[in-house]
Amino acid sequence: MQRIADVTSAAAALSWDQETYLPSGAAGFRAGQLSTLMGISHEMFIGGKTNELLSDLKTNKSLSDKEQKNVELIEEEYKKQNKYATAFVEQMSQAVSAAFNAWQQARKENKYEIFSPHLEKLISLKKQECDLLGYESHPYNALLDLHERKATVADLDVLFSNVKKELVPFVKQIANAKQVNNEFFFQHFDKNKQWDLGIDLLRQMGFDFNRGRQDISMHPFTTGLSQNDVRVTTRINENDLAEMIWSCIHEGGHALYEQGLPSDQYGMPLGEAVSLGIHESQSRLWENNVGRSLAYWKANFKRVQDIFPEQLKKITAADFYQGMNRVEPSLIRTNADELTYHFHIMIRYEIEKAIFEDKLKAKELPDYWNAKYKEYLDIEPPTYTQGVLQDVHWSHGSFGYFPTYSLGSFYAAQFFEQAKKDIPQLQEQIESGDFSLLLNWLRKNIHIHGKYYTASELCERITGEKLNFKHFLTYAKNKFGTIYDLR
Amino acid sequence: MQRIADVTSAAAALSWDQETYLPSGAAGFRAGQLSTLMGISHEMFIGGKTNELLSDLKTNKSLSDKEQKNVELIEEEYKKQNKYATAFVEQMSQAVSAAFNAWQQARKENKYEIFSPHLEKLISLKKQECDLLGYESHPYNALLDLHERKATVADLDVLFSNVKKELVPFVKQIANAKQVNNEFFFQHFDKNKQWDLGIDLLRQMGFDFNRGRQDISMHPFTTGLSQNDVRVTTRINENDLAEMIWSCIHEGGHALYEQGLPSDQYGMPLGEAVSLGIHESQSRLWENNVGRSLAYWKANFKRVQDIFPEQLKKITAADFYQGMNRVEPSLIRTNADELTYHFHIMIRYEIEKAIFEDKLKAKELPDYWNAKYKEYLDIEPPTYTQGVLQDVHWSHGSFGYFPTYSLGSFYAAQFFEQAKKDIPQLQEQIESGDFSLLLNWLRKNIHIHGKYYTASELCERITGEKLNFKHFLTYAKNKFGTIYDLR
Repeated sequence: MQRIADVTSAAAALSWDQETYLPSGAAGFRAGQLSTLMGISHEMFIGGKTNELLSDLKTNKSLSDKEQKNVELIEEEYKKQNKYATAFVEQMSQAVSAAFNAWQQARKENKYEIFSPHLEKLISLKKQECDLLGYESHPYNALLDLHERKATVADLDVLFSNVKKELVPFVKQIANAKQVNNEFFFQHFDKNKQWDLGIDLLRQMGFDFNRGRQDISMHPFTTGLSQNDVRVTTRINENDLAEMIWSCIHEGGHALYEQGLPSDQYGMPLGEAVSLGIHESQSRLWENNVGRSLAYWKANFKRVQDIFPEQLKKITAADFYQGMNRVEPSLIRTNADELTYHFHIMIRYEIEKAIFEDKLKAKELPDYWNAKYKEYLDIEPPTYTQGVLQDVHWSHGSFGYFPTYSLGSFYAAQFFEQAKKDIPQLQEQIESGDFSLLLNWLRKNIHIHGKYYTASELCERITGEKLNFKHFLTYAKNKFGTIYDLR
Repeated sequence: MQRIADVTSAAAALSWDQETYLPSGAAGFRAGQLSTLMGISHEMFIGGKTNELLSDLKTNKSLSDKEQKNVELIEEEYKKQNKYATAFVEQMSQAVSAAFNAWQQARKENKYEIFSPHLEKLISLKKQECDLLGYESHPYNALLDLHERKATVADLDVLFSNVKKELVPFVKQIANAKQVNNEFFFQHFDKNKQWDLGIDLLRQMGFDFNRGRQDISMHPFTTGLSQNDVRVTTRINENDLAEMIWSCIHEGGHALYEQGLPSDQYGMPLGEAVSLGIHESQSRLWENNVGRSLAYWKANFKRVQDIFPEQLKKITAADFYQGMNRVEPSLIRTNADELTYHFHIMIRYEIEKAIFEDKLKAKELPDYWNAKYKEYLDIEPPTYTQGVLQDVHWSHGSFGYFPTYSLGSFYAAQFFEQAKKDIPQLQEQIESGDFSLLLNWLRKNIHIHGKYYTASELCERITGEKLNFKHFLTYAKNKFGTIYDLR
């Protein structure tokens, strides 16, 4: 498993390089090289002695509890990987390449019809994949499980019905309140000064620069090449200070999780993150519950003001806090505020579910999309590019991925509420710019366990109950009720 | 072969990363990961169907001339690789790790005795390797062949006897002449301005930044991840302008070779460089024959003066040219001038030959080393670190590598002399800062052939004769005779 991890980690390093330093002329070569490495690691896992070793280990009575869990999880993954015939994998890989190119072209020309037949093809392959993987109750469950182990339509339906029932009317209420100002974010902020600030914020969170680094890329991301080499990237917009701040804190949250995974479990399931949802809970907790809190800016606003005295001379920590929490329906998911963000996810969830219930075809997506945006956000995308073509996920054949973003935020709220209970002096510490107690809490309760618990087990173990939307709702109502003076 | 190349290229990318961007805490992990990847590529080559495929291909009558050459060279490599038992490879790898650590420690404490037993162990293993590989006439030939295919003690003896007979007295003559001034190189030169100048020089040579890049590292090097992704590194010393200039031009020469290899031969011997000696001929040709020529600085001095007007206001292009060609015996090989450089190599060659003739033991090296430095350079190393411990090569188990540096310079002089004959307007073009005719000549005569010819065949094909020291000597006597006014 560790030899295989060496190969997948090499592939991760090459992917990181692809987004940061790769010369433009090497793009095609690198894509082929990555495909070779992924093929090799797949062959090492499936074609080697894995099955034989698993059989031996399953009857070995001397294994520790953790070792048994590793064996169990490796076997689960082995069975899943074994379901894929090479021919199917190659067909999917070709369809994805073609779909991704078509998606880029379609965006450029704002022509959905360029993408539509490719999407239809991918949907048909993904339906085959559902059958091949097997599922209970709903075919979409097979795809959800790929991104969020054990997640089901039944559970997500409950969550998103709450979003619809509680969050949609709450956002309408906010829309009728006095809007907060965020104009000051959109001034000129020097690139190098922003970079230094970002590094400072990461260091303050507890990011270990001896075991990681930050670079620039078009789309910010985090990659863990090992627990000792975790790399984040950021994007700096000289006309919008907020972009860099949120990408640093968000990716920093992901990175702290990767740096906190147990190093003695390298290559094993217990050395990996629980799921995409739990990974996102770490980035969202730092970004939203910590980074977009008044306490955080009580600690940090002065520092930002000192770096940009001209731009922020008339702004207070409270103005800064309110501005960054402005709620406003918008077209693009990745730019959305903390509340309407979930409407974007809910729309995608409803679309994906309908597709795998055979109720929606690729060519019907734009109308369906626009109707949903009208219904939940009361806006109409002026172009396909700003509408149904905005996300890369479907062109990659990633269905069942989007819900993990909302799960992340909801887990984050529930975890953070518990952290506040467990650490009485937490707010006080945050106000002084010290995050050590919080980081230790996350390390001890989440990071160190790797994949030992499922997301649901972990949540119950930490908070005493399964994921419950009410914690997010309480957090949101308190925070935005105060900001928008709704009491 | 291309799948294997994808893996070795991934390893090369990870090595590049190791020298440029790797977080310090990941050093141990990366070393292990590289060893896994090299193991996998070795297994793919030896353990796969290579033998079977080679047998088929050898009887295949429809192969083109180039295809036949590829088959022949792959078989040669296959036979060589097959001689290594896994146990021997592992023993060597462990001995190298231990020796490298000991070498670093020995340097730090200036204690040769820390390194000595490890070196003795490596020598014993390398002697086993000579036997295992087989050789004619001299065991050292087996090791030379690993670095410079077909190179022999017999040929090198001739070369270095010429160095001793011709170059040693010539340098003594220079020592009695009026020394030229190079003080102006050792002023403060801003880092960022130096960086920009280096990029400019690379671009002017013809380095294609769409298929490559430059970064900073402790020790400058070039790596070709594919013909479309060739990376050089440089080192900038703010108190010595020369360091950056020579590393850029030298590595640029290596890089132009890599960028000029035929892209349709990726993964094949015909897509690779001939040998280390020929690779070095490309870097030395650009560094010495072009970069340290008056014509080059007629084109470029004004630009450098404009960037550093204060530092260079009293300096002319001729001063600059003379200063960079100052000949002076010195302790450290990598800082040596164009002539005494070969004395450093000759000493290492004599030592290595004596070792493999069982005439010299590890513990006797320091005395032998110091005596040779006294004899050829008339200097005595004040410490082991500046003497026998200065190079990393032996601690890596690399014996037979050093001679390729001198071979490179001698090939370079012979090639450049031919290029001047073939391109009548060459000097004129260089004086105008245009290197396109030279680069085309190198591309056509050297780069595009990959490994098709041996070094010796290539040399004969281009210049009509095998490597002949007299070309270097003529070049050196003309150039330095003029600079030091020896006529």
